[in-house]
Amino acid sequence: MRLIKTKLSITVFLLMSTLSYGFQVSSLDRLIVQGNSFVNDEGTTFVFRGLNASDPNKLELQGHWNKAYFEEIKNWGANIVRLPVHPTDWTERGKESYLKLLDDGIQWATELGLYIIIDWHSIGNLKTEMYQSDRYDTTLKQTYDFWRTLASKYGDNTTVAFYEIFNEPTTYNGALGTVTWTEWKTINKEIIGIIRANGGEGIPLVAGFNWAYDLTPVLEDPLDVEGIGYVSHPYPQKREKPWEDQWTKDWGFVKEKYPLILTEIGFCGPEDPGAHSPVISDESYGDAITAYCDEKDISYVIWVFDAEWAPRLFEDWNTYKPSRHGKYFKKKLQSYTYD
Amino acid sequence: MRLIKTKLSITVFLLMSTLSYGFQVSSLDRLIVQGNSFVNDEGTTFVFRGLNASDPNKLELQGHWNKAYFEEIKNWGANIVRLPVHPTDWTERGKESYLKLLDDGIQWATELGLYIIIDWHSIGNLKTEMYQSDRYDTTLKQTYDFWRTLASKYGDNTTVAFYEIFNEPTTYNGALGTVTWTEWKTINKEIIGIIRANGGEGIPLVAGFNWAYDLTPVLEDPLDVEGIGYVSHPYPQKREKPWEDQWTKDWGFVKEKYPLILTEIGFCGPEDPGAHSPVISDESYGDAITAYCDEKDISYVIWVFDAEWAPRLFEDWNTYKPSRHGKYFKKKLQSYTYD
Amino acid sequence: MRLIKTKLSITVFLLMSTLSYGFQVSSLDRLIVQGNSFVNDEGTTFVFRGLNASDPNKLELQGHWNKAYFEEIKNWGANIVRLPVHPTDWTERGKESYLKLLDDGIQWATELGLYIIIDWHSIGNLKTEMYQSDRYDTTLKQTYDFWRTLASKYGDNTTVAFYEIFNEPTTYNGALGTVTWTEWKTINKEIIGIIRANGGEGIPLVAGFNWAYDLTPVLEDPLDVEGIGYVSHPYPQKREKPWEDQWTKDWGFVKEKYPLILTEIGFCGPEDPGAHSPVISDESYGDAITAYCDEKDISYVIWVFDAEWAPRLFEDWNTYKPSRHGKYFKKKLQSYTYD
Ligand SMILES: [Mg+2]
Ligand SMILES: [Mg+2]
Ligand SMILES: [Mg+2]
Ligand SMILES: [Mg+2]
Ligand SMILES: [Mg+2]
Repeated sequence: MRLIKTKLSITVFLLMSTLSYGFQVSSLDRLIVQGNSFVNDEGTTFVFRGLNASDPNKLELQGHWNKAYFEEIKNWGANIVRLPVHPTDWTERGKESYLKLLDDGIQWATELGLYIIIDWHSIGNLKTEMYQSDRYDTTLKQTYDFWRTLASKYGDNTTVAFYEIFNEPTTYNGALGTVTWTEWKTINKEIIGIIRANGGEGIPLVAGFNWAYDLTPVLEDPLDVEGIGYVSHPYPQKREKPWEDQWTKDWGFVKEKYPLILTEIGFCGPEDPGAHSPVISDESYGDAITAYCDEKDISYVIWVFDAEWAPRLFEDWNTYKPSRHGKYFKKKLQSYTYD
Repeated sequence: MRLIKTKLSITVFLLMSTLSYGFQVSSLDRLIVQGNSFVNDEGTTFVFRGLNASDPNKLELQGHWNKAYFEEIKNWGANIVRLPVHPTDWTERGKESYLKLLDDGIQWATELGLYIIIDWHSIGNLKTEMYQSDRYDTTLKQTYDFWRTLASKYGDNTTVAFYEIFNEPTTYNGALGTVTWTEWKTINKEIIGIIRANGGEGIPLVAGFNWAYDLTPVLEDPLDVEGIGYVSHPYPQKREKPWEDQWTKDWGFVKEKYPLILTEIGFCGPEDPGAHSPVISDESYGDAITAYCDEKDISYVIWVFDAEWAPRLFEDWNTYKPSRHGKYFKKKLQSYTYD
Repeated sequence: MRLIKTKLSITVFLLMSTLSYGFQVSSLDRLIVQGNSFVNDEGTTFVFRGLNASDPNKLELQGHWNKAYFEEIKNWGANIVRLPVHPTDWTERGKESYLKLLDDGIQWATELGLYIIIDWHSIGNLKTEMYQSDRYDTTLKQTYDFWRTLASKYGDNTTVAFYEIFNEPTTYNGALGTVTWTEWKTINKEIIGIIRANGGEGIPLVAGFNWAYDLTPVLEDPLDVEGIGYVSHPYPQKREKPWEDQWTKDWGFVKEKYPLILTEIGFCGPEDPGAHSPVISDESYGDAITAYCDEKDISYVIWVFDAEWAPRLFEDWNTYKPSRHGKYFKKKLQSYTYD
């Protein structure tokens, strides 16, 4: 997806120009990092506008893990889908069975020309192995093994463009112990090494602290690893309006030197189901964050294409009827023009 | 409990002056560290004379986890009770069920005006995760989680005055691998941070090596954390008689600058059940250690208010008939005058 | 076993001179390190020519864990047998049950005058706790506990001459994460300390990276621990012919200063069952490695005295009929003269 600025509009070009809806492709371009962008081997920049799936295991147990789900994601205007693999789902379902789910999802995404981010969806402090809740429990050993497994199996699959190493690093204000930026860099570098040594040709994505909001340490102390991107999750209540200058200082500056992807954004009204800090806001947040990203060619992925998790993008599984949040982003995603 | 020296006797004042036996209080004063003492918010010093319970899980399985047990502890003259939570009991019973036991114990103690020390009762080397026996098995991850859980649940409960981070650190003369004082300080500091970030307002207690006997490293290299106390377990056979000068050099000096609490003392004769090094001695040990503590306002807690564990303080559960060890300390504890 | 060079032949002397086949001894000499050799308390050098058993648990499940198996090993000319304890077998069988197997094996070996190497038979990176396959899974905690257990139980048993800390350290070209030589030395030193503090009087053996092939870091940076030996597994395909100068540079130089034992050597033809890199070669490898070891008094142990594992030394359990590999080494081992 190329973002081209004209005087009239922002037009996003899907580079797989032979792709149209209903047409099946067999493989997508391999993406790599060039300067501060994601590019294909011809050097064309891809900017992503996508949707977060809920956990494939959750979807499968509900009977929603099927191509129709991916088709609807495509229909909403996404060119990428993020798959949040919860460590406890991975453990409970078992590695072999979970991989079968991913096999299917990757195949459907490929056929629809959707790129995939595999996201190890834990929240907490991987150094002390303490998490926001038991739901997110894992170990460093399991995390290494997950990425070894994923890289071995999907490392040369071009659809699986991104490996998001750890969803939301946080010490929860110290409740989960301490971890320094230096320690966090070391953990990420070890995992990136493991991914690459096991054949992972995709792009590792590294998140900062404060539930993946804060990338300020990157200014002085980026990872000394080539070919990676950085992640932020700038939900509306992480800062007070007006957001833009704070966003630039907290994470937006990263895009001057490195590729940047907001793998979770979104909002809901205080009356919406599951409303919780930091996601409560309104359409003004949608306008601000999308304008910010369109202006700077920053990729983003909206949380979450599900009827139960919050902020939900649709209200029921039969009709995919958009929520307030869903209405905003469905319209916005569909406004981009793919080449 | 305030220790006031008069020319006639040492009189220990219980500061909750409205409390008399049979009178129920609803909460105790919050204790904090001031200089080398434990004080309440009015700055009055508390010195503790207490008893060790056996593991609440053990007591519950035997049918002894009830208010009568706490009443008897109170009746013996204690103003504090230490609850030794064995990691394997915690694991086997399960967190939720174990917390219900603690809920009850804390309630009974509160009603009786008894303070509580929660003690993570492992013995060994938390760095290498090797222990004196399988009975004491835990991990650093579980230990972090235990303190997070305890601090979250009881952090603002003033009865739970003390968090004893790790009962008896020892490398068992290297059999459990190595750990340096610097490494041990780092582990304790991490846990103290976790306790406080989760709302633990009580006082963390830090033990030294040699089964919590040796505090000599504190002389040159104390933890750089405010508001904590130190622990020693000076059982009689840790040193040869006369003990006093050695005690001062090994751990007593700490009281010049920091609060100090001997969370395990006690003795039994060689003929007593369960007699084992380093607890075998006689009443001369009782005289020496209590005189030492009375002189220096050092708190102590006697091991153990149980009929089976050694050195046992009583001989049977129906009558609480004191053992030789129990006779000595029951009389001693009852000699203190509470205000 | 003493290696004495004469002009006519290399004669290997078994120092337990009263021992002949069928005669039972009750204990073997305690071996220690002196300079670059293994010696008994009289300073006589022992050089080993031995065979690898397969895992005792595997043998027991097949009905082959019996004295006849050890007699056949003895009959082939071995003076040492290596027992590869797979961590997953240790875990699945359970510690107590597995120790009973070892009790038996050690007893049979003692009766036959065979020394034993206990080998913790994992392959991978103990720092990141990632392994070549699930078969080799363990943790640092389990590894510490294994050696504590072994040293406590067999530490004063002179038959158990060697403790091979970790079979084959490898990062698998980074697929199992990173580990530096300094980190590897620290892990080994911790384990050696644990072994010795638990009464292990035998000789710890330390392996290098690249599946225990590469000892080059020892040149500049040996472990600062006395009384240990080093290990290499120079299978034929680790280097191209001619091997000798490369062997000297890669691991042979170690013997100039430290005792060295090749705890796995062996070959098979490409047509043999289980043939795999790096073991495929022919008798020229046998000639080269045995001449190299005979010349330099380097001990070696051939992999593997089993009919299923590769390279197998015999073809069936009823007759112990040697494979091609077995024919070569049976003849070679039997050519040594024991005193
Ligand atoms: Mg192309
Ligand atoms: Mg989130
Ligand atoms: Mg004790
Ligand atoms: Mg001798
Ligand atoms: Mg091998």
